[in-house]
Amino acid sequence: MCTTFSIQTKDGNNFVGRNLDLAYNVNECPLILPRNYLMEDKVTGNMQTTDKALIGIGTVIDDHPSLVDAMNENGLVCAGLNFEGFAHFEEKPVPEKTNITPYDFIYWVVSNYDTVDEVKTALSNIDLVDVPLNDQTPVPTLHWMITDKTGSSIVVEKTKEQLAVYDNPVGVMTNQPTFDWHLMNLNRYISINPNQPEPVKWSDQLLQIHGVGAGTLGLPGDSHSVARFVRIAYARAHMPVLEDDISAVTQCMHMLDYVKMVKAGVLTEGMAEKTTYSACMDQENGIYYYKNYGNSRINAVNMHKEDLDGDEIIKCPYLTTQDINYQN
Amino acid sequence: MCTTFSIQTKDGNNFVGRNLDLAYNVNECPLILPRNYLMEDKVTGNMQTTDKALIGIGTVIDDHPSLVDAMNENGLVCAGLNFEGFAHFEEKPVPEKTNITPYDFIYWVVSNYDTVDEVKTALSNIDLVDVPLNDQTPVPTLHWMITDKTGSSIVVEKTKEQLAVYDNPVGVMTNQPTFDWHLMNLNRYISINPNQPEPVKWSDQLLQIHGVGAGTLGLPGDSHSVARFVRIAYARAHMPVLEDDISAVTQCMHMLDYVKMVKAGVLTEGMAEKTTYSACMDQENGIYYYKNYGNSRINAVNMHKEDLDGDEIIKCPYLTTQDINYQN
Amino acid sequence: MCTTFSIQTKDGNNFVGRNLDLAYNVNECPLILPRNYLMEDKVTGNMQTTDKALIGIGTVIDDHPSLVDAMNENGLVCAGLNFEGFAHFEEKPVPEKTNITPYDFIYWVVSNYDTVDEVKTALSNIDLVDVPLNDQTPVPTLHWMITDKTGSSIVVEKTKEQLAVYDNPVGVMTNQPTFDWHLMNLNRYISINPNQPEPVKWSDQLLQIHGVGAGTLGLPGDSHSVARFVRIAYARAHMPVLEDDISAVTQCMHMLDYVKMVKAGVLTEGMAEKTTYSACMDQENGIYYYKNYGNSRINAVNMHKEDLDGDEIIKCPYLTTQDINYQN
Amino acid sequence: MCTTFSIQTKDGNNFVGRNLDLAYNVNECPLILPRNYLMEDKVTGNMQTTDKALIGIGTVIDDHPSLVDAMNENGLVCAGLNFEGFAHFEEKPVPEKTNITPYDFIYWVVSNYDTVDEVKTALSNIDLVDVPLNDQTPVPTLHWMITDKTGSSIVVEKTKEQLAVYDNPVGVMTNQPTFDWHLMNLNRYISINPNQPEPVKWSDQLLQIHGVGAGTLGLPGDSHSVARFVRIAYARAHMPVLEDDISAVTQCMHMLDYVKMVKAGVLTEGMAEKTTYSACMDQENGIYYYKNYGNSRINAVNMHKEDLDGDEIIKCPYLTTQDINYQN
Repeated sequence: MCTTFSIQTKDGNNFVGRNLDLAYNVNECPLILPRNYLMEDKVTGNMQTTDKALIGIGTVIDDHPSLVDAMNENGLVCAGLNFEGFAHFEEKPVPEKTNITPYDFIYWVVSNYDTVDEVKTALSNIDLVDVPLNDQTPVPTLHWMITDKTGSSIVVEKTKEQLAVYDNPVGVMTNQPTFDWHLMNLNRYISINPNQPEPVKWSDQLLQIHGVGAGTLGLPGDSHSVARFVRIAYARAHMPVLEDDISAVTQCMHMLDYVKMVKAGVLTEGMAEKTTYSACMDQENGIYYYKNYGNSRINAVNMHKEDLDGDEIIKCPYLTTQDINYQN
Repeated sequence: MCTTFSIQTKDGNNFVGRNLDLAYNVNECPLILPRNYLMEDKVTGNMQTTDKALIGIGTVIDDHPSLVDAMNENGLVCAGLNFEGFAHFEEKPVPEKTNITPYDFIYWVVSNYDTVDEVKTALSNIDLVDVPLNDQTPVPTLHWMITDKTGSSIVVEKTKEQLAVYDNPVGVMTNQPTFDWHLMNLNRYISINPNQPEPVKWSDQLLQIHGVGAGTLGLPGDSHSVARFVRIAYARAHMPVLEDDISAVTQCMHMLDYVKMVKAGVLTEGMAEKTTYSACMDQENGIYYYKNYGNSRINAVNMHKEDLDGDEIIKCPYLTTQDINYQN
Repeated sequence: MCTTFSIQTKDGNNFVGRNLDLAYNVNECPLILPRNYLMEDKVTGNMQTTDKALIGIGTVIDDHPSLVDAMNENGLVCAGLNFEGFAHFEEKPVPEKTNITPYDFIYWVVSNYDTVDEVKTALSNIDLVDVPLNDQTPVPTLHWMITDKTGSSIVVEKTKEQLAVYDNPVGVMTNQPTFDWHLMNLNRYISINPNQPEPVKWSDQLLQIHGVGAGTLGLPGDSHSVARFVRIAYARAHMPVLEDDISAVTQCMHMLDYVKMVKAGVLTEGMAEKTTYSACMDQENGIYYYKNYGNSRINAVNMHKEDLDGDEIIKCPYLTTQDINYQN
Repeated sequence: MCTTFSIQTKDGNNFVGRNLDLAYNVNECPLILPRNYLMEDKVTGNMQTTDKALIGIGTVIDDHPSLVDAMNENGLVCAGLNFEGFAHFEEKPVPEKTNITPYDFIYWVVSNYDTVDEVKTALSNIDLVDVPLNDQTPVPTLHWMITDKTGSSIVVEKTKEQLAVYDNPVGVMTNQPTFDWHLMNLNRYISINPNQPEPVKWSDQLLQIHGVGAGTLGLPGDSHSVARFVRIAYARAHMPVLEDDISAVTQCMHMLDYVKMVKAGVLTEGMAEKTTYSACMDQENGIYYYKNYGNSRINAVNMHKEDLDGDEIIKCPYLTTQDINYQN
């Protein structure tokens, strides 16, 4: 499963963090799609130009890039997160709509638009349709969080009932159930706070708690999406002021750790769930930072250091070996 | 506050992990005490030789090394963790006992012994006494987990009632309250497990849960020591087989992240609590791995690459700047 | 706040239980409205005949009966529960609809219909409108559970977004938030079950739990509506077979106790919240059983023992003095 | 399992409440033992006179009364509660001690002493020994709460380690684990309080909670002894002032309901756990109030209305049929 959120430095530079949690491997790596890359529309079969260069993590299947998340050259970010059991796509293309496949929705968002407002307008003319990438690859069950450079953010969810577009006042998203359910659920954690509770008497017994962190008693600690939503929403609301970009990257990675899946207690069909990678996208500077389960060092790819006017996908090395600094 | 635990590879190499959680800085760095280093006994004023070379993280106050944790050349590890509100030391040296100060207890353990059994025997002849290091430094309120190369582990706690030595069947320790309380508390989490619950009917409603991790529903997510004990005990009991030493270091760091304090929601007197550093001690090879809040890259210091027959403390560089690998 | 649910004997006799939880008094008592009672429609000012005789608990304000819950002579029950912060009624009567006030909705349901299906059909032609009973009485913020003699049940909620009618597969209702939110929330309690967990090993420690009830570890124990919904839905799904009517009344009262507000820990503006009364309606036989905070003995009023063809409200004695049986 | 606690009116009249929770029946009924009743000491075989008349609930096995709880004519109350997995009694009588069987401990306490201080002194000269009542009846695994007329209260627990006597500052007791563990555990509920939390902002989202009782979010709702201890300790600490004796009986019964086992969700070997009876002992006036699972009306037996100078056990009727007041 997954977690994503946005944070901002005191100077207003915005960053999006995201974990990809999986029990298996998807051959993912950082990908850059330059402006002249031709991408097939899997619904119509037409080839479309990529309006805006983009960087993200994804995998290339049958020459078709399938993105897990991406940021374009103007800082718009779209991250896809699992929404199994709730996501529902149209069986057939809807007439008079632009029909998009779930695995190309991220591409559609960041190759065409720069702001959340633009995306919101465009969303009224699209629908999501259940056309597979190929015979071997089932259509993924996703929902999406979209964040622009200003920090403005929405969540897009297509269920049986509707194609819902939610403004995102908490700046975070995980998985099931729907976003509005999560938002309501937060109210139950209204008393969680950063301060140590004061001693209090129950009958003749003084209750007091030694050590720190007791203001957070009641935060759920399981790995399911509901608990991760609560924890990361709490963390985002209570993080310190971020003085500069490196502090933001550092804090972003710590917050991703806070909701990470450690190989230690969650099995899916016998395989250990883990946070495959943790990414932090610098929306102002087009830098994609990541670490992964095997390598805790932060790696960075700057899209602006590549030729963004090309027409070929750039696959960047994905560094998964633990990169230890031996001091002696 | 702090968390510590031990883990083992499939080949039996043992490692001890530990987080130091603090809202402020203690000028800590990796320290190596070679075999001929002379250390002052703060109770008697005598100088004592260091029987066994050791490596750890600590700080030097008035020429006196105060260790937060340490491992000796034969793999015995002792980690000190805060035990405020419970730790109670003798006001005056106890006659006919070896009297040790709390801040020198780690040194006493790892400079003298190699196995948990040796320490257990020696503990019957010592007591802990409230002699400060100097006028400005209050005596720390600590308890300790001691682990040898075989993975055998004990917890030592001095309270008003007793100097207790507990065998440690779960291989983890955090802070307050006493170890036996924590151990009893685990029973309340007996139903937590790695597998997704099966759907079940309540009246005419089918309960089912999409996404992963729902077997862990009920794990506490707060930052207080009781919750960290439960979470890390669960994680240690359910981690995968560790194929080799690097896998162990990697897994150890992830498990430390799982109970880490992120600057995002716990304040102590207005300062954000954080995990100052996360360490992983390779007991077979004498390598001290660490990362810290500012730098997520793992650094390593190998004690055997230094001259262990010297008589001066070796202060190693403590690398706290985010060490990013810029790929392009 | 309030809780309601339905239960059934093995012979198919259906009963509805309900708690009214309040910090203050509303001068409630059992009321019977016979078939010829004339009731003012507060929207139109017209007088309407009462098609079906009914019994319930309510209060008479300015000669107008305001019902908290009621059952008609054919066993249809409607209970109103607080829905503050979510209930939203039309400011003005909606043209071409039958406009009903929230405080008369219960009356409208049980004086006109006998089955849930009839009510569902009728609901498409009505709306709820914000016309107060008089100047001193604010319009109550309610939602409703309606249950017929077969045990079929729906929940009706009017919010800003819609007039929602939910089939009720769990047969329970409490207060905020909306019914569909509660239903989704139940999934998080999928692992709660009646059986004692088996011992399990975490590392070298055997976890085991003595005493009974440990299968229910994780059930929320607070008094808020979300917790009461979970607890009563769990209880209803796991109650024993009810052999006869008196067993049903007995079990119903125990289940109401299970979610009751005890004067011991919840204050509203300084006043202790309490379960004012607990009622159990025998839908087959028209008997209204109740007890209240002051009197734990069960009292019963049989509507069929009164003249149901009259035109005057029958106010029954409401017995609130602790009715102890002194055995010697 | 069981719950017990003491409460006091504003005039200082003290009452002890207790639930007996069982999945099966023990043929219990109210028993009065007058002053001249001869009771066999099962360890020595001697017959002993009953110094003080007493009333309680129990069962008579082989002409030997086995008490579940009892109050003597001077208001001293002792209640036995299950302590399975922890209770440990001596295999053989301990020389130079008065050896008492667990099933006769209640009798020993209330037939000999009037105050908690007297009992504390006497406890230093006794031990508890594993002598069965007869071949068919295993020795019960119990611990005890003893309360005198002033409200002073202790808990007595015999484990492998010690015969512990704890002062009881919270005035409540349930079952496993030991009393000191429970007392420490309360600290984790330090933030629970009677008041509705104020709205608070998390990022741009206002968290607020409608309805009442949200200050108690975090109270555990399961039926296990740890949760019942927390809930009843919270309730006792926050109950309203009790104006008179009947208010005390009423409130006591409500608080017993608050921790009662309802036949709806806890099974022991396939049988539904239930609160067999709920008792309230008026220590000032010698009145034993009770209700049971089948009968919610409160019954009362006044010991002073019987001849307390007799030598025969008085078995009082135990009224278990639902005693409904049919108003019409």
